[in-house]
Amino acid sequence: METISENKCFGGTQGVYKHSSDACNCDMTFAVFLPEEAEFAPVPVLWFLSGLTCTHENAMTKAGAQVWAAEHGIALVFPDTSPRGKDVPDDEAYDLGQGAGFYIDAIEDPWAKHFKMWTYVAEELPKIIGANFAINMERQAITGHSMGGHGALTMAMALEGRFRSVSAFAPICNPTQSDWGRKQFAAYWGDEQSWGPHDATLLMQGNGFSGPILIDTGTDDQFGDLLGTEAFAAAMAAQRQEGQLRLQKGYDHSYFFISTFMEDHVAFHAEALYA
Amino acid sequence: METISENKCFGGTQGVYKHSSDACNCDMTFAVFLPEEAEFAPVPVLWFLSGLTCTHENAMTKAGAQVWAAEHGIALVFPDTSPRGKDVPDDEAYDLGQGAGFYIDAIEDPWAKHFKMWTYVAEELPKIIGANFAINMERQAITGHSMGGHGALTMAMALEGRFRSVSAFAPICNPTQSDWGRKQFAAYWGDEQSWGPHDATLLMQGNGFSGPILIDTGTDDQFGDLLGTEAFAAAMAAQRQEGQLRLQKGYDHSYFFISTFMEDHVAFHAEALYA
Repeated sequence: METISENKCFGGTQGVYKHSSDACNCDMTFAVFLPEEAEFAPVPVLWFLSGLTCTHENAMTKAGAQVWAAEHGIALVFPDTSPRGKDVPDDEAYDLGQGAGFYIDAIEDPWAKHFKMWTYVAEELPKIIGANFAINMERQAITGHSMGGHGALTMAMALEGRFRSVSAFAPICNPTQSDWGRKQFAAYWGDEQSWGPHDATLLMQGNGFSGPILIDTGTDDQFGDLLGTEAFAAAMAAQRQEGQLRLQKGYDHSYFFISTFMEDHVAFHAEALYA
Repeated sequence: METISENKCFGGTQGVYKHSSDACNCDMTFAVFLPEEAEFAPVPVLWFLSGLTCTHENAMTKAGAQVWAAEHGIALVFPDTSPRGKDVPDDEAYDLGQGAGFYIDAIEDPWAKHFKMWTYVAEELPKIIGANFAINMERQAITGHSMGGHGALTMAMALEGRFRSVSAFAPICNPTQSDWGRKQFAAYWGDEQSWGPHDATLLMQGNGFSGPILIDTGTDDQFGDLLGTEAFAAAMAAQRQEGQLRLQKGYDHSYFFISTFMEDHVAFHAEALYA
């Protein structure tokens, strides 16, 4: 693991690191914020999964999460959203290939060799985080934005017992019924009968989540019709799932929306992480 | 004036606007954050002047200022750092030409036609802000980073009575004695005897500032030798200037440093703006 940069930030350290990924068959970059408390003992961790077109960097610089993570003594991990590099397949569209891993493991060519973002975020990266940082892997929570909200919700429900709480900002909630989902699943997985159970609404209709959920989505989200919020809302209600779905008046899909509600999300996770 | 974008943010609006600038002879872009309170009455304003290579966008997205401005009911203005466009002269170096206006009015060719950032920020843009936004121009404060800290300090001292308070993050304090200053003054102003009084240390040795000053600079600032902090510190002390100069252990020159101390700076200005 190579250190790309480390900057002091809110009394802790915002670092960026690179490593050779077995899952993705390429170098992967990720960012970790460690609060000051990590100097003395391992701290709880909140994962932030980013959306389409993003790298590890967008949320690290624009989500305004470190101030609240520092206040609560929580680490943050920002993975990249796909494998990258000139040897990694890509597509001209912003929503396929590099920057659009969708947190699933591709089985179709040309994607299958590198696009293993489920295995990367669910298995490989946690081992690296646990081995190299003062983070208590018994106390994990997860959040994300848009495609990363899809990743956060599906991981929280599929990896039972891993995360104490899950939240999301404008998540893609029902990708099997959306152009943000069907296109990528068809490319990475092929025929619809090969699609994995990576749809938050379907998972909610199954077992749901064992902890609390917090979702914020703007009423003026320019991609609102692609998110499937109504299907997930219905599934949450039918499941009697502990949680809150908040529709925030006038907010859109941007990082200005994310940063506005970040304080609430970090506080929500802190309550679960320190319980 | 053209609206480029407006996003709801912390209950208010983060906007980006473009207009044709008489001072700079080109289109100029700037950003304004208006807190919710501006819907009901004009609010005080804090100017943020950015550093080398930045546009209006860097601080708007990375400084984490809106959360505190919303808390205190203060507007933020983020000007660009230079004229821009393919008809505007530039230089290969990051620290001259576009992105490096240095908040002065050039008199030498090829810069003189466009590089009038003093007149732009001190005269033209305030008129546009006052005419188009619910901002109380009787209650202004100013801050900035690096080259923008130089701009903030020199404007606060030169424009007597304009600003109630001034602060800066890692400001260039003594440009006439630094490679961050001499190079640009020589290019924009020519011979040293033509240089204007745009050096914070020299202005502090003159009349100083009529209100309070707050400066934060990191002890691990990678550009520390270019800032002239020691000269300004001596001048502040000799002047018996009301103010604080804080050297923050372990912090560098980045936006992670800026965002860490932004809460303090906005609170500092709020106290002066609401006095």
